[in-house]
Amino acid sequence: MARRLELVALEGFPLVEPGAELSRLIVESLRHNGLQLQAGDVLVIAQKIVSKAEGRYVRLADVEPGPEALALAERAGKDPRQVEVMLRESRAVIRARPGVIIVEHRQGYVHANAGIDRSNIPNSPEGPRVLLLPRDPDASARALRAELAASTGVAPQIIINDSAGRAWRNGTVGIAIGTAGLEPVRNQIGEPDLFGNILQVTEPAVADELAAAASLLMGQSTQGLPVVLARGAGLLPSEEGSGRLIRDRATDLFR
Amino acid sequence: MARRLELVALEGFPLVEPGAELSRLIVESLRHNGLQLQAGDVLVIAQKIVSKAEGRYVRLADVEPGPEALALAERAGKDPRQVEVMLRESRAVIRARPGVIIVEHRQGYVHANAGIDRSNIPNSPEGPRVLLLPRDPDASARALRAELAASTGVAPQIIINDSAGRAWRNGTVGIAIGTAGLEPVRNQIGEPDLFGNILQVTEPAVADELAAAASLLMGQSTQGLPVVLARGAGLLPSEEGSGRLIRDRATDLFR
Repeated sequence: MARRLELVALEGFPLVEPGAELSRLIVESLRHNGLQLQAGDVLVIAQKIVSKAEGRYVRLADVEPGPEALALAERAGKDPRQVEVMLRESRAVIRARPGVIIVEHRQGYVHANAGIDRSNIPNSPEGPRVLLLPRDPDASARALRAELAASTGVAPQIIINDSAGRAWRNGTVGIAIGTAGLEPVRNQIGEPDLFGNILQVTEPAVADELAAAASLLMGQSTQGLPVVLARGAGLLPSEEGSGRLIRDRATDLFR
Repeated sequence: MARRLELVALEGFPLVEPGAELSRLIVESLRHNGLQLQAGDVLVIAQKIVSKAEGRYVRLADVEPGPEALALAERAGKDPRQVEVMLRESRAVIRARPGVIIVEHRQGYVHANAGIDRSNIPNSPEGPRVLLLPRDPDASARALRAELAASTGVAPQIIINDSAGRAWRNGTVGIAIGTAGLEPVRNQIGEPDLFGNILQVTEPAVADELAAAASLLMGQSTQGLPVVLARGAGLLPSEEGSGRLIRDRATDLFR
């Protein structure tokens, strides 16, 4: 029988407000879409709704840019308040030039603008806001997994994904910034290949591959499809988090 | 109704020999798997079987390494003949250090070892061989699309994928190195977001996202699942090729 992977984007997912109980919204949306969690299912959740539920908004009017932010904003041609917020979310500035600031986020991923953006953010009466990444995406993923297990009896594997730019290639792809219950990188070192030879080192980043697949369905515009159920991915269970996906500085040739 | 993306890896795909007619093998395998092409289907084909059908083997015994290959092989701790082959396939060496050589392939993609590897390559009686990437993956994809259209009446969109390492992140992900009939990067600049604001620049690299999804099913080991049918991806038709995915040197901050 052919091996199948099926991804379903949940239709009609409600707008998420700070304090929202995401697990309850997801259970209701699954039911609304005629779906029930099964063992081995993965739920891929857009970072944005996790951040919104966690109330990770910052009002730019409340931000006082420091000297580093002022200098960097000048160099990149960006709003100094937004750059200040970005610096607070980052460990290091990797590259900066007009229009682009690429940083190492405090969680370790390398990301343009520290993953902060202003699209799909409702305007506040007190002026423009930005939305930060979740405080600790792995912790958010673990909590969601535990809550869903408690309310449905099935503990789905969880990926929180975000769209990220890449070195060398145009366009963004979904990546996993938080995971729970799954092995994010499959270790195939030493498995035999088709001809019985021992494989060279190949370690597919399966969590990123599934994050990308879900991102394709989520779209980025008016559709608003922030939750994707994936069935048939065959990800191995593991308690390690998404940190496994982040290359050590020492072995990274591109910083 | 929920939006669905389904991927099916074709079981029992035969080993591919030089000169094999891939389109015929694919049609037979689809039939064997009880599947029929439909409008909007995407076929994702592993680079390796395209290269094999094109006979892109090089016997290392036939390779005479030049001075640049000898120096680079010494630096990286690699077989000088393999490095010579790699250099012939490349435009520039981007980074080299023990165990790793990262080059700009003559087709433009940045790739460890120019995408040349030795796993899943049958040993030749005349000694070890390596397998190069297809000569022109976009041309291979276009030819396959035309042949499948002629034999089935449906012109599927085609992605030839390969596994590639990345800056900053561990593990490989599938990327599209050849495409036919589809828009590889979706241009969403100017589409309104959920709140009617004009979106910031976001250009999802949809061909890479689907290449990654298929890669998850293909695996890398004894399974040998080199062809994946994707249904529901909703990629826009286009005659542009995979070159659109490659970032201009001038805007690339990581070379």
